[in-house]
Amino acid sequence: MTTKAYGAHAGNQPLEPMDIARRAPGPHDVQIDIAYCGVCHSDIHQVRSEWAGTRYPCVPGHEIVGRVSAVGAHVAGFRTGDLVGVGCIVDSCRHCADCGEGLENYCDHMIGTYNFPTDDAPGHTLGGYSQRIVVHEHYVLRIRHPEAQLAAVAPLLCAGITTYSPLRHWKVGPGHKVGVVGIGGLGHMGIKLAHAMGAHVVAFTTSEPKREAARTLGADEVVVSRDADEMAAHARSLDFILNTVAAPHDLDAFFALLKRDGTMTLVGAPATPHPSPEVFNLIMKRRSLAGSMIGGIPETQEMLDFCAEHGIVADIELIRADQINEAYERMIKGDVKYRFVIDNASLAA
Amino acid sequence: MTTKAYGAHAGNQPLEPMDIARRAPGPHDVQIDIAYCGVCHSDIHQVRSEWAGTRYPCVPGHEIVGRVSAVGAHVAGFRTGDLVGVGCIVDSCRHCADCGEGLENYCDHMIGTYNFPTDDAPGHTLGGYSQRIVVHEHYVLRIRHPEAQLAAVAPLLCAGITTYSPLRHWKVGPGHKVGVVGIGGLGHMGIKLAHAMGAHVVAFTTSEPKREAARTLGADEVVVSRDADEMAAHARSLDFILNTVAAPHDLDAFFALLKRDGTMTLVGAPATPHPSPEVFNLIMKRRSLAGSMIGGIPETQEMLDFCAEHGIVADIELIRADQINEAYERMIKGDVKYRFVIDNASLAA
Repeated sequence: MTTKAYGAHAGNQPLEPMDIARRAPGPHDVQIDIAYCGVCHSDIHQVRSEWAGTRYPCVPGHEIVGRVSAVGAHVAGFRTGDLVGVGCIVDSCRHCADCGEGLENYCDHMIGTYNFPTDDAPGHTLGGYSQRIVVHEHYVLRIRHPEAQLAAVAPLLCAGITTYSPLRHWKVGPGHKVGVVGIGGLGHMGIKLAHAMGAHVVAFTTSEPKREAARTLGADEVVVSRDADEMAAHARSLDFILNTVAAPHDLDAFFALLKRDGTMTLVGAPATPHPSPEVFNLIMKRRSLAGSMIGGIPETQEMLDFCAEHGIVADIELIRADQINEAYERMIKGDVKYRFVIDNASLAA
Repeated sequence: MTTKAYGAHAGNQPLEPMDIARRAPGPHDVQIDIAYCGVCHSDIHQVRSEWAGTRYPCVPGHEIVGRVSAVGAHVAGFRTGDLVGVGCIVDSCRHCADCGEGLENYCDHMIGTYNFPTDDAPGHTLGGYSQRIVVHEHYVLRIRHPEAQLAAVAPLLCAGITTYSPLRHWKVGPGHKVGVVGIGGLGHMGIKLAHAMGAHVVAFTTSEPKREAARTLGADEVVVSRDADEMAAHARSLDFILNTVAAPHDLDAFFALLKRDGTMTLVGAPATPHPSPEVFNLIMKRRSLAGSMIGGIPETQEMLDFCAEHGIVADIELIRADQINEAYERMIKGDVKYRFVIDNASLAA
């Protein structure tokens, strides 16, 4: 079956319309007509070959929402017409310890939604900048938000779970003072989620103009991190820091804000390393530096349900597929509040 | 009261005999006649002004064991003649949250056994390279080892608790595979303790000749970390790594050996930073890099009791006080198995 998509034929070429093939649904597959797909910063890195190993043609997109249009004979959990989502994962081994614990994101054989090997043509997975996708039922999420919010739900599938998972894993909740560093696609979700979990949220930005925006998102306090006095006012007071900034920056300034036994978790990986952290900052208060990568399937469902219950969606700018190259340029300049989402109906044009 | 000591008058001078004053015991003080004092690598850094803020004269030593020779009127827990120890801490605020949890080591007002401000002459604390010390009872530890082992107990007060505390905090025990990086003063204790806690212990050394020694200490496996194949055989298999190496080194090679959710805890702080760790190594398996600093008073007592119960002491070389400068030179070359301990009776000579 052929479906329209937007992708690139090489790292130095813009994205353009293309036709791609999708497999016929197998017994455990769910076929989804994609309504919207969020645009993640990693899409840019991957499609432009800024990370190693991009396979072409490359069709990015792993923040997918839409409606079930067909199901395989053995699919019990989904029916045609259901509102569903697909995030960063479309397959894994389903028998290792990680999969057994519902942490498919850490499975050594995880298959990402695009640019991972598959038996389907053309030999690697193709993502959500397309009209349709076919995914094993295990990796399909149920969406309980009102349909009117569907476009703004899309970014929850990556930006939402990437921030939700570490907030839950490090047990953020009432009585905690939590820092969120960076107010972009990930950070704006981190603020909303940590706030909804009941934490006192301190947002950190390098940009004075983002101060009010961060409050609107749910931050109780906002710190412009270039201001040493503002930073010092929070010294040794934070239980947890969710650091969403992928650009190399001084981690030590944030360690100094953690209480004893506090953890700073990175969810962005810089292309060149951060300046090496000062070990004394870890030793003196038994602090930790950690990393976290998206989240597992059960936790992604939990996150979607939590967001539906709390009325949480992403703040988005809806675009047509043919605006994607321009959108990338704006994202690189940080000029988006806070996530572009493709209206996949525009692919039919 | 005057007591004989060994110390330095400046960072560029050798240690030499000197007379120092000790306060008369206050109502809550315990006066200890020091039998032995371990020689910690930090003693060298401090006395030679390799770290900031050394106060002179500097009398190092925070691995102190001896006998109580007098107690203040309100001291209930100790009597003259008791075998006792003093570690890195001789005072703290005793009313903050850290102190309340028995984590005096993380109190912002912790007073170290030497080189910290005090009302006593000469205005800063003087350590265990001396005949006698007077310490508030809260910071005095009971020693339940046989007296014949007393010299080898001394290093437990720093090297022992510095490795015991993180092993306990990160819940090392049966069923865990634990790495200990570096086989020196700290590392040799880490191997013994992790083994006694029931873990499967993998020792990492850069030195082929230390392979057999590490097995003797209790390591189940020994890896020469310069051997990439030996390292690769342990990829993604360790639950926890205790890294005792203070010299800057490649942390990434060890992260790769941690399982999902594994932690590597540093107990040594390098003078210049480690090469910056690769963030992907943290993110991909939700790994953590942490630090830990000595341990609290209740935990130090627990460690001493654990060691007495399991027959654990340090492996030491006993020296006279007048051999200390030579011992420092040997320590810098790594030529000690594994801790020098001063026989403080030699101070009377």
